[in-house]
This record gives sequence, C-alpha cells and structure tokens, in this order.
Amino acid sequence: MQEHAFVIRGDFCWSRTPQELHQVRNGWLVCENGCSAGVFPELPERYRNLPVLDYRGHLIVPGLTDLHVHAPQYTFRGLGMDLELLDWLNTYTFPEESHYGDLAYAETAYRRFVEDMRHGPNTRACVFATTHVDATVLLMDLLEKSGLVTMVGKVNMDRNCPDTLGEGSAEASDRHTRDWLRRIQGRYERTTPILTPRFIPSCTDDLMERLGRIQKETGLPVQSHLSENPGEIAWVQELCPFSKFYGDAYDAFGLFGGENCPTIMAHCVWSGDEEIARMKERGVYVAHCPDSNTNLSSGIAPVRRFLEEGVPMGLGSDVAAGTHVSIFRSMSEALQVSKLRWRLVDPSRKALTAHEVFYLGSVGGGSFFGKVGSFDPGYELDAVVLDDRRYTPQSGMTLEQRLERMIYLSEDRDVVHKLVKGRALF
Amino acid sequence: MQEHAFVIRGDFCWSRTPQELHQVRNGWLVCENGCSAGVFPELPERYRNLPVLDYRGHLIVPGLTDLHVHAPQYTFRGLGMDLELLDWLNTYTFPEESHYGDLAYAETAYRRFVEDMRHGPNTRACVFATTHVDATVLLMDLLEKSGLVTMVGKVNMDRNCPDTLGEGSAEASDRHTRDWLRRIQGRYERTTPILTPRFIPSCTDDLMERLGRIQKETGLPVQSHLSENPGEIAWVQELCPFSKFYGDAYDAFGLFGGENCPTIMAHCVWSGDEEIARMKERGVYVAHCPDSNTNLSSGIAPVRRFLEEGVPMGLGSDVAAGTHVSIFRSMSEALQVSKLRWRLVDPSRKALTAHEVFYLGSVGGGSFFGKVGSFDPGYELDAVVLDDRRYTPQSGMTLEQRLERMIYLSEDRDVVHKLVKGRALF
Repeated sequence: MQEHAFVIRGDFCWSRTPQELHQVRNGWLVCENGCSAGVFPELPERYRNLPVLDYRGHLIVPGLTDLHVHAPQYTFRGLGMDLELLDWLNTYTFPEESHYGDLAYAETAYRRFVEDMRHGPNTRACVFATTHVDATVLLMDLLEKSGLVTMVGKVNMDRNCPDTLGEGSAEASDRHTRDWLRRIQGRYERTTPILTPRFIPSCTDDLMERLGRIQKETGLPVQSHLSENPGEIAWVQELCPFSKFYGDAYDAFGLFGGENCPTIMAHCVWSGDEEIARMKERGVYVAHCPDSNTNLSSGIAPVRRFLEEGVPMGLGSDVAAGTHVSIFRSMSEALQVSKLRWRLVDPSRKALTAHEVFYLGSVGGGSFFGKVGSFDPGYELDAVVLDDRRYTPQSGMTLEQRLERMIYLSEDRDVVHKLVKGRALF
Repeated sequence: MQEHAFVIRGDFCWSRTPQELHQVRNGWLVCENGCSAGVFPELPERYRNLPVLDYRGHLIVPGLTDLHVHAPQYTFRGLGMDLELLDWLNTYTFPEESHYGDLAYAETAYRRFVEDMRHGPNTRACVFATTHVDATVLLMDLLEKSGLVTMVGKVNMDRNCPDTLGEGSAEASDRHTRDWLRRIQGRYERTTPILTPRFIPSCTDDLMERLGRIQKETGLPVQSHLSENPGEIAWVQELCPFSKFYGDAYDAFGLFGGENCPTIMAHCVWSGDEEIARMKERGVYVAHCPDSNTNLSSGIAPVRRFLEEGVPMGLGSDVAAGTHVSIFRSMSEALQVSKLRWRLVDPSRKALTAHEVFYLGSVGGGSFFGKVGSFDPGYELDAVVLDDRRYTPQSGMTLEQRLERMIYLSEDRDVVHKLVKGRALF
C-alpha cells in the first residue's frame, strides 16, 4: 500500500448517482494512503506541501470497472460473430479455450490481454479464465503484477463441452477448484478469486451443489451468465425442470446473491418480472454487456427498468463476444442500444443518458469492489488521466461535453496516466 | 495521373458481389496508369521488371467509400446525442455550421477533418459542406491537395434555419450555387461538385425548382437526406402536401435519380414500398448510415430488403451524427444493427454478414464513382494497406478471418499505406 500523499491537478468528472455528475475544472484531487481525500477547487492550506502531478487541461475520471470479461477469448475478439450464442461457443470459444491447457500458449495470450487492459481506462475487472488451474494461476500472477485490481475465476464445467475443456466430473471440478484456491492463498495483494460456474448448461446439479458448498465455506463472490439468449433459456428450463426461471436454477444451489454471496450475473437480456424481483431482493449485480448482446444477436437488456427498480448494475465488455476491453466503448454501446430499444421495442421507457452510462461504468460497477469508482472522500483512488486535447474544437467545450465525447471517441492511447489505489500503473 | 506501373505484394481481399469474396494470400497486385491490371498468385513474366512495394504479411483491401459525411460537423462528433434529429439540428448542428462564414474558423476545422480522413481507410467520399461558398471552395482545395477523390456539395437552405446559416431566399441560394460552380470550374483533378439541397424541410419549392434546373443544365449528381426520422417524415408531408411519399417530393423537382441525375439519399430508415420501388426504378443510391441512425434514435434501415431488391447502396459515416469517419466502423455498425433488426423487428429477414457489409463499404459505395472499390482488372486502383499483425493470435487466421477482425477492430493507425488511383497518399 502507498503510505504517501500527493495531489493531482486537472479537470475532474465523477458520478455519485445516475443523475448526478460532479465537475471541477482546474481542480486539485488529494490522495492519501491510496484513497481520495476529495477534489478541491482551491488546494487547502494543509495540503500545500504535497507533491503535485500537474495534468492541467486533461480530463480526469475515476478508473472504470469491467464487470464481465473472458481473458482467454481476447485472442479472437471480432471473429465469427455471424453466429448466435450456443453455436458461437461450440465453434469458436470452446476450441480456443481448450488451448489454455498449454501453459506456453496461455502465457503469450494472457500477456497480451493484461498489457492491453493495463493501458486502457479500466482499473478493475471481474475476469473469467478457463477450467485450467495452472493457466488461471498464471493469469492471476500477470494481473497482480500489472497493478490492476481484479477478481479472477477458474471456470467450472462438467457437461456439454469438449473433453479438452470440461473437467470430466463434478468431483474433479470440485477438486480442481479447491486446489486452485489452495495454491493462490496469500499469494496476492490485488487479485482475488471468484467462483465461476460457466453457466447452467455447463454445470451438472452435482457440480452446482458442490460449488454452493465451497461458497458457503469460503464466502467467495460468484459470477456467471444469465438469461442471455432465448435458446439458452429454453435449454436451462429443460436441464433444470425444477427451476421457476433461469436465475432460480442458480438460487437453488445458493449461488444467487444474498448478504454472504456477492454475485454478478452477465447479460439479463430476457429477465422477466420474477427474475428481476429476485435479483433486486438478493442484490445480484447485472453486468450489462451491450456490445456482446448485439454481436451475438441476443437482444437488448431492459437497463432503464433495472435502474428504475434499483437493481445493482455495472458494465461488462464481455470480450470476445464484445470486441473492445475499454469500458468507454461499453458506455457508448449501452447508450446506442438503449436508443434502439426505446424506438423499436418499448417507447414507454426512455433511452439512457451519457451521465447514466458513465455512472454504470464507474461507480455502478466499481461498487462491487467496495468504495470504488468515485472521487468522493474515502473512495479508493483509481484515476484515469485522459489527454483529450486532440478532440477539442476551437469553440471550446464544457467538462460535461468533453466527458460525453470521451465516451464516444476515446481510444486507449488517450490514457496518459493511470492510478489504481493511488499507485501509478505506468 | 500516374503513367507508371508498379506492383504491390501482400495479402489481398476484395469483393465482387455481396456474397463473393476474393482472396489471394501472398499475391501480386499490378497497377498500370492508376488502374488495377489484376491480382496474381504468381507475378506474370511481363511484369517482372516493375518496381515492387513489398507488404508481405499485410492485409490489403480496396479503398473504402463514405457515401455521406458532413465535413463541418467533424468538430463536434460525439456530442449532444441525447436528442433526436430535428432538435439535434437546431441545438448543435445549425449553430456550429454557422461558424463557417468565418474562413479562419473553417480552415482550422476543415484541415483537421481532411487530415484525419487522409490517414484512415477511406479513399472516396461524398461530402456536405455548409451554405457558405468561400468555405466550401476552401474545403475542396484542401481535399484536392489531400489526394482523396471526393464529391463536395455547397449546401442549399432557404427556410427553417437560423439567418446565419440560411441563404435568405431561393434566388440567393440559386445565385450562390452558380457562383460556386463558376469559381471551381477547371480548378480540380480529383474534386467535383455535387448538388446538395440539405433536405426538404430546409428548401422551399422555389429553391427545389431552381436546383432542378441547375441539375438539368449541368448534369451534376445530387445528394440529400431521406426518410430518416418519423417526425421529419410527417413534417415533409405537411410542407409538400402534393407528395405521395418523402422521396416523391424530391422527384417532383427532378432531383431523384434517373440516368442523367445520379443521386444519393442518406438513411432511408423508414422508406415504404412505394419509395423503395421508385428508388429501384431510378437507381437512387441508399447511403446506409447505421451509426447515425442509432445515435439519433432514428431506427434501423431495412438493408436486407434493399439488397434483395437490388437497390444500389453503400455506407455513410454521417459524421457528426455518426462518430467515426472510418467506413470500417460503419461496417461493424451495419452488422450490429442488422442483428438487432432481425431479433427485435423482423425475424423473416436475416442479419447481414461480414462479406455483405464489406461489399457495401467498398465496391457498393465505390460504384457511385465509377469502376471503384475492387481489385478486378480495369478498376481504378484505390488500395489500403493494413498492418494487422498486432491482432494475430498464435494459432493464425485465414484471410477471411483477418478481414472480419479489421471490420470490428481496426483503428486508423493500422493503415500504413494508401493509394488513390494508383497514387500514394503518404
């Protein structure tokens, strides 16, 4: 941990609620012990001796959180997206993930993923690895070294997948998971495990029961997929005839939220009334992945409704069904599909605003990590410094306008400095 | 014109029809007098003495065509897109375009637009300027110097806009247009004028009649907007009660296709049976602008139907309602929205494929410029050399896969060499 204190100078934007955007132009952000002490229009007397990082003229926002990303799919993003989910998994994803039994292959691929994420605007992520323990530990080692803060899951699968990827039996998957947890115990400062049943079609009831037990023993958080595609949902109903809805199948095994089981469910495109009510009741996070949901022709999630009902939510890149790791891209996609949903599906629920998607990508998803995603005092200090001067027209722009443009236009190379828990990443 | 001949070596992909993708890995493209003499797997004897540009390992595709872009809006792309078309025009677009009466302002802004387009994958474009003659000539001078081949329109407007942008009367707009055409006569090699009534709501019947006369006198092509937004369409029906449908209002003034009036209509999101039949009959080009249609909540154009019915079509960035000039971005957006249209609007018409959008962005739109957008022998040689090696995974990729990934992932900086009519741009 950083024990020192310092100040960053620049133009700050951050979110407290979906409606409320805070802006301080030419302000001073004070960092103490890895946390924000606040953003000040004038630097208070008591901080005048601190060293200053001078980024005047730059736009500074909280680090972004990717609530759903598949590290081993980074190699083939942008490929084979003429298929729907289940065909895409069988044709591209499962064969590619099978390579990660080979550690040399995994190392080259994971290095590229981690390097690219390190340079973009994300500072936190909830990451799917593969079923392979060695490669998952390798990925966690690389992420730890990168300075990013992540939760990483060794994936569990014991049915409906090739032998090269599946774990053979519920018992083996249970054992691999416990081995993995043992191997990483005490190994990291910034990298923590998250239980990761791939999704119901990949996990037998036996395996889900075992994972439920591990969750109770360890208190680990959980991540999985939910209600992404109509074909998938019908299949889950066949596989778990006891379930009232897709999410109920997770819940039957104690893997669907509640105070002692923080849970993220990616997609929720087709979640119905009962499922939404259960998610709200249990505090299950939605990882909204608009790019992915479009690319795999899944549909458009009812994000306005989730916001209205207060279901906790953040954004996910869902690489490789999503094409870009940057959560700025997820923000612009979220805006875009919400407009099409308003126009073509449900004119009673209005489209999202730039403020709202910025909230989701920063403090919305960040809150899964604690006090993260804001510059309010006491929040862990993740900050991204953007050089947006090449976009500025002669007539100038307000801070709010500059933020909106970064959502639509920014590329990773615009990130010129990045701090995670007050520590510089490059 | 280039009288010399040379050869380019690399990995080639190009389109002849929406279904047919040609691929030659490690092939030889021969350029003679600015045109393609073909792509060869082995270099024929008769070309063995020609100089060779060696881009082995690079992906080489035809230059892309942007059928619809607003140069003066480039400064504020990515801004204010929480509004629909008519409000967005009044709030952002018209005030910004009003600045172009100031030549110094125009020069700074247009230089940035032209430079960015020069470095991206587009080689041709049909461009809207503003109503200002001096600034339009300045833009044409800059485009000519860039080496790009473009059609540029001084915009006509005489109603429903601020005084700073409107031309005051039909007579004045007529006079400005004739002045403009006189000033640029014989001035350029690569830059040609295109008549540009902004859209029906901006042009009185008197002005449209005058433009119809200019079109007949000069044979110039025409570009405008059509059936973008339901509110706009209703307004056109009020303004032109004589018209059977929106496109019929253009047709009444002789500005809607036919052999002697090549015409591009941007958007066509809500075109009905009659309008589509008329477009097909007259050979009116659709400029499909998916990014824009999403950002302004306009909807999703029936592109599959246009393809099935053989309506000529290309892609448009429609900056600034679209955010990116690169037509690769328009391709990925076209793919994406076609999937949502299939899922949410009309499951009877399947989504577009990567081949199809590549066709639209290359030879589809290119054909408005003649034999453009292909490497088949006799086509004008526009080529874009992409260094896609940073995207290649260890397991390798087919040429077709590399092309699909460029559609989703490429950034302008991946363009390492670019030729227009056989002439290098940088």
